[in-house]
Amino acid sequence: MKKIMNCPVAAFIATFTLSAIVLAEEEPKEALSPNQIVEEASVEEWVAIPTEDLLVMRLAPDAEGNPREVIIQLMPAPFSQGWVHNIKLLAREGWYDGISVNRVQDNYVVQWGDPNYDNPESDGEKKTLPDGLKVMGEDEYTNDEPLKNLLTTTLTIDQEWWHKDSYGKSSGHFRGWQLGYSDTQWWPVHCYGMVGVGRNLSPDTGSGAELYTVIGHAPRHLDRNIALVGRVIEGIEYLSSLPRGKGELGFYAEDEFDKRTPILSIDVAADLLESETAPAGLTYDYEYLSTESETFAKYAEARANRRDPFFILPAGGADICNIPVPVRSAPNG
Amino acid sequence: MKKIMNCPVAAFIATFTLSAIVLAEEEPKEALSPNQIVEEASVEEWVAIPTEDLLVMRLAPDAEGNPREVIIQLMPAPFSQGWVHNIKLLAREGWYDGISVNRVQDNYVVQWGDPNYDNPESDGEKKTLPDGLKVMGEDEYTNDEPLKNLLTTTLTIDQEWWHKDSYGKSSGHFRGWQLGYSDTQWWPVHCYGMVGVGRNLSPDTGSGAELYTVIGHAPRHLDRNIALVGRVIEGIEYLSSLPRGKGELGFYAEDEFDKRTPILSIDVAADLLESETAPAGLTYDYEYLSTESETFAKYAEARANRRDPFFILPAGGADICNIPVPVRSAPNG
Repeated sequence: MKKIMNCPVAAFIATFTLSAIVLAEEEPKEALSPNQIVEEASVEEWVAIPTEDLLVMRLAPDAEGNPREVIIQLMPAPFSQGWVHNIKLLAREGWYDGISVNRVQDNYVVQWGDPNYDNPESDGEKKTLPDGLKVMGEDEYTNDEPLKNLLTTTLTIDQEWWHKDSYGKSSGHFRGWQLGYSDTQWWPVHCYGMVGVGRNLSPDTGSGAELYTVIGHAPRHLDRNIALVGRVIEGIEYLSSLPRGKGELGFYAEDEFDKRTPILSIDVAADLLESETAPAGLTYDYEYLSTESETFAKYAEARANRRDPFFILPAGGADICNIPVPVRSAPNG
Repeated sequence: MKKIMNCPVAAFIATFTLSAIVLAEEEPKEALSPNQIVEEASVEEWVAIPTEDLLVMRLAPDAEGNPREVIIQLMPAPFSQGWVHNIKLLAREGWYDGISVNRVQDNYVVQWGDPNYDNPESDGEKKTLPDGLKVMGEDEYTNDEPLKNLLTTTLTIDQEWWHKDSYGKSSGHFRGWQLGYSDTQWWPVHCYGMVGVGRNLSPDTGSGAELYTVIGHAPRHLDRNIALVGRVIEGIEYLSSLPRGKGELGFYAEDEFDKRTPILSIDVAADLLESETAPAGLTYDYEYLSTESETFAKYAEARANRRDPFFILPAGGADICNIPVPVRSAPNG
């Protein structure tokens, strides 16, 4: 990919300022792609992700013996913290080790958990959940809809890049995440790669023992109906390319249980780094582009208005899930 | 799934009419899911898809020897007819037979064509294109942007279900397709499973020899920048679950050419049915739910406002790609 080192921005902003006139006397510059804009971000615009917020999920190796590691970034406060507490507890108790991917529904979700939980076709014994799990909304069970108050958060945000979207509400980016909002209420949205908490019918709110990730067009109708707890930041392809289940809702049917992918372990990255058996040089250094940075604003604008050479007509807008937050391995990581 | 045979609609429409009062005296009904609403559609609301508009793409069998057949519905007039002409010609000339899937980019597209075309890592010979292909926009090459006039269509449509979307334009359903519009101009949009024509930089408009389908969140920034020619109506999972390419843009890199999936054949369904070697009982009878039908309006409303038992809060809207057009095998097909 071409890199234009000087005036990377001026070339694609329609303006009649002095810099535009100067540019006109130089060679014509190609407008940068969103990825090229991100490459130009300064070191200070990247925000380190705490390893305490990262889950490392190891799937069984693929048919050729290649390892498959999926990295999940858990949401920081104030979102979904009760479920995040449970998930870290389950990871630290080793509860997830040995569960499997039991559901792969095309253009929808991949879901993993105890294959003997809530699966009428399995006759094995359920794994016992550890002590100390929070029951989210427990105090509100009487009103039959405990989730309603748990899935949104009151925040005061002053952001420029908030747009009315097709879901009757608005959406935008905040502290590294894609959010929806209405009045003073905010919530994470179901974009590709987001991770949520499986649940049964309300008033069940889900414990965190059953998790899923989005592998298709954003199922935004799930927003504010299920708890989102994070997103896959590496290795989503190991999940999205799994064979689809032929049972109802994409669960693997009884004659294809062998397609369930075993999950060897899910750990908090910070624990792996502190482990005595950690290999030398092990790191989990990831960072996201600050959604409050100047470069992010340019990137988001360019996602909505592609002017790089392939494009002949900028769209004039983009939905929130078509503006993913750039995440990378830290350059020295 | 539960099926409520009486009054399937009244239960989810907020109304104070007599029927609602009558319902109140009966057992409470659960609101229907969008799929349940579609199941209640009358026979007359389904529209048969001409087999002349269907492509049958046979991939090489999977690792276990299972056949993989992908059915593509080509767009009818007035959209993209020049490319559709080319694609049928290429299919009928047998030109596609023996090509392969060369690109699988996660959350984006699967692309198939001649592996030796436009792939710097391949040193094989390009397949020769047949005579009779149209060069779309040929007469307008002088203006450097021949696609601009070819990718939109002037139509007069009177539809209720058209909404402003995040792309600065409006969108809705028309004659079985998802469309975007602005003023009197209309165009197909890049939803999951849509099939488009690969091209090089403008003024190239693509011949139809290189095709792709969307396997992730709708890349709507491609709308009006590339020709869309149809959609996958069956077997998308054979494409969406293929291993992702490790090369640039998801192309299979030189050391993984063995991951390219061979395409045994692409044929027009009507030709297969008329073939002397057609197996007895072969059919390609598909139909879509009329987007102008009463049931479709209810279905679309329910996609935007889920009230079936799992949901606690209807979204209040949905983007066009989250309201796919129901397609099925004809019951007697």
